[in-house]
Amino acid sequence: MILGIDLGGTKIKLALVNGNEIQASTSIDAHSHKGFTANLERLTLEINKIREKNDIMGIGLATPGVVDPENLKILAINEKYSDLVGFNIKSWAEESFNLPFVLENDARAALYGEWQYGIGLNCKNVVGITLGTGIGSAAVVDGRMLIGNKFIAGNLGGHMVIDRNGIKCNCGKFGCMEAQSSTWSLPEIIKGHSKYKFSKLKEANLLDFKNLFTLANEGDECAREVKEYCLEMWSLGILNLCVAYDPEMVILNGGIMASHRDIIPYIEERINRKTKLSPEEKIQVKLAKNIDTAAHFGLKHLLEISLTKK
Amino acid sequence: MILGIDLGGTKIKLALVNGNEIQASTSIDAHSHKGFTANLERLTLEINKIREKNDIMGIGLATPGVVDPENLKILAINEKYSDLVGFNIKSWAEESFNLPFVLENDARAALYGEWQYGIGLNCKNVVGITLGTGIGSAAVVDGRMLIGNKFIAGNLGGHMVIDRNGIKCNCGKFGCMEAQSSTWSLPEIIKGHSKYKFSKLKEANLLDFKNLFTLANEGDECAREVKEYCLEMWSLGILNLCVAYDPEMVILNGGIMASHRDIIPYIEERINRKTKLSPEEKIQVKLAKNIDTAAHFGLKHLLEISLTKK
Repeated sequence: MILGIDLGGTKIKLALVNGNEIQASTSIDAHSHKGFTANLERLTLEINKIREKNDIMGIGLATPGVVDPENLKILAINEKYSDLVGFNIKSWAEESFNLPFVLENDARAALYGEWQYGIGLNCKNVVGITLGTGIGSAAVVDGRMLIGNKFIAGNLGGHMVIDRNGIKCNCGKFGCMEAQSSTWSLPEIIKGHSKYKFSKLKEANLLDFKNLFTLANEGDECAREVKEYCLEMWSLGILNLCVAYDPEMVILNGGIMASHRDIIPYIEERINRKTKLSPEEKIQVKLAKNIDTAAHFGLKHLLEISLTKK
Repeated sequence: MILGIDLGGTKIKLALVNGNEIQASTSIDAHSHKGFTANLERLTLEINKIREKNDIMGIGLATPGVVDPENLKILAINEKYSDLVGFNIKSWAEESFNLPFVLENDARAALYGEWQYGIGLNCKNVVGITLGTGIGSAAVVDGRMLIGNKFIAGNLGGHMVIDRNGIKCNCGKFGCMEAQSSTWSLPEIIKGHSKYKFSKLKEANLLDFKNLFTLANEGDECAREVKEYCLEMWSLGILNLCVAYDPEMVILNGGIMASHRDIIPYIEERINRKTKLSPEEKIQVKLAKNIDTAAHFGLKHLLEISLTKK
């Protein structure tokens, strides 16, 4: 049995993975804008509480940002948990737990999970995309997870430019898929829409995708148009990823996938529209099998590889 | 010694590769719009002429389009040589030459060449881009050439969308890098420029990059602005490829690289501009070592692999 930890923006999710199953799971509130160290004491405590009652062979941590899994370092991070860059995870893990420990980027961990234990089982070419506050991604090509020269291959799918005259992204570029459509960029997109002032979105307590999709499906015109726009932006971004990696399957994950019935059919149709260069066989677009725990399964896989090496 | 054949749009280039050197090379005119079969008799004749005088261990062919190297098939092709799709290359090769024979996409063959014999030697992560009539590409990630589910991983870098409101591409999409800036799209871009009517480009016999760069460097305002625009389009497209594949080096090749002094410094500066997620180390942008024969060296590498397997 292993303990997987997924460092999300609002929750830190802990799960015990035993064989092919989640034995137990819990979460603690994340104070991500205060940084990682603000969460450290509570997280260490929680882990030790779980260890007291369970026989754990290893711990895995999935975090946002650019991760060097060999040296257990976070090299860069965009917004939240900014103090993870430079934080000595190795020392913390050794001193606090003295157990086999792995670290991986969260989107990559989630794709490992879906590829080894989920909907992508037996795929040789598969792209994973996490639609949430930002957009994470990872890619398996020819049966191998892409890593790259600086550990970012496959990981920055949300930061490929699809509209050079588009919205300014938090990375500094313009028109990244993530700037064109993600939870952080949605409020500005809605408020900038010409029909916003006549829309029920004005009364919404939160300008998130859940409310957007609900109002769109009720016929609110502004919500319908923004929904259509967002689906188109994701489709264009995901099409670019398919052009880059040539997958047989795209696996979607993340908080926004609560609305997967509105999202998956649209994207699947859109990215499979014929072009002169498109392959005969359709690319499948699938919901992750383990929406909340894909990363935990992925961390289990990585721990097993790491234990085999030793 | 092996014979490499590079099926270009205007010339079919044949070269004998011996060790690390080109022993001899020649070319025949390509009637690419008439298709491959229109060239077949002359090509077969030329190959046999070369065989009579040289001891050849194998033949390699690099073509545009989507190539299945295992089954010696061209699965799709965009414009020229359209009859290559469905043409039985295996039978032709066996019946005409009875020699070990390999087939690969031209951009991938060129990157194999530069990676194994050229400027990319010892790189583990490298992207190759051929700027010409269209834009070809290929990618080596973690020490392996990407192939993908339908043989297109890395190959369609010219068909990633960088401007969703951009120019219609010959693939059917809008705003692909290739539509935004390549030899086939350049005349329309120039003619659509507001200052074209005052420009010396109006008197040019050919609206190609050579004339564009020459006039731009002489101070022609329209030429300067179109040049700047094209450099920016390539930079955005190549930046997307770097985001996708995380290379340490980008290798540029193709006819347009006659103007490499105007192109490489611009792209290298542009793609290395800091973003919040960019790595510390710069991505090198390099001219191919073997501009005209990279693909031939790549075919030699592939023949050697294929002979080892047998």
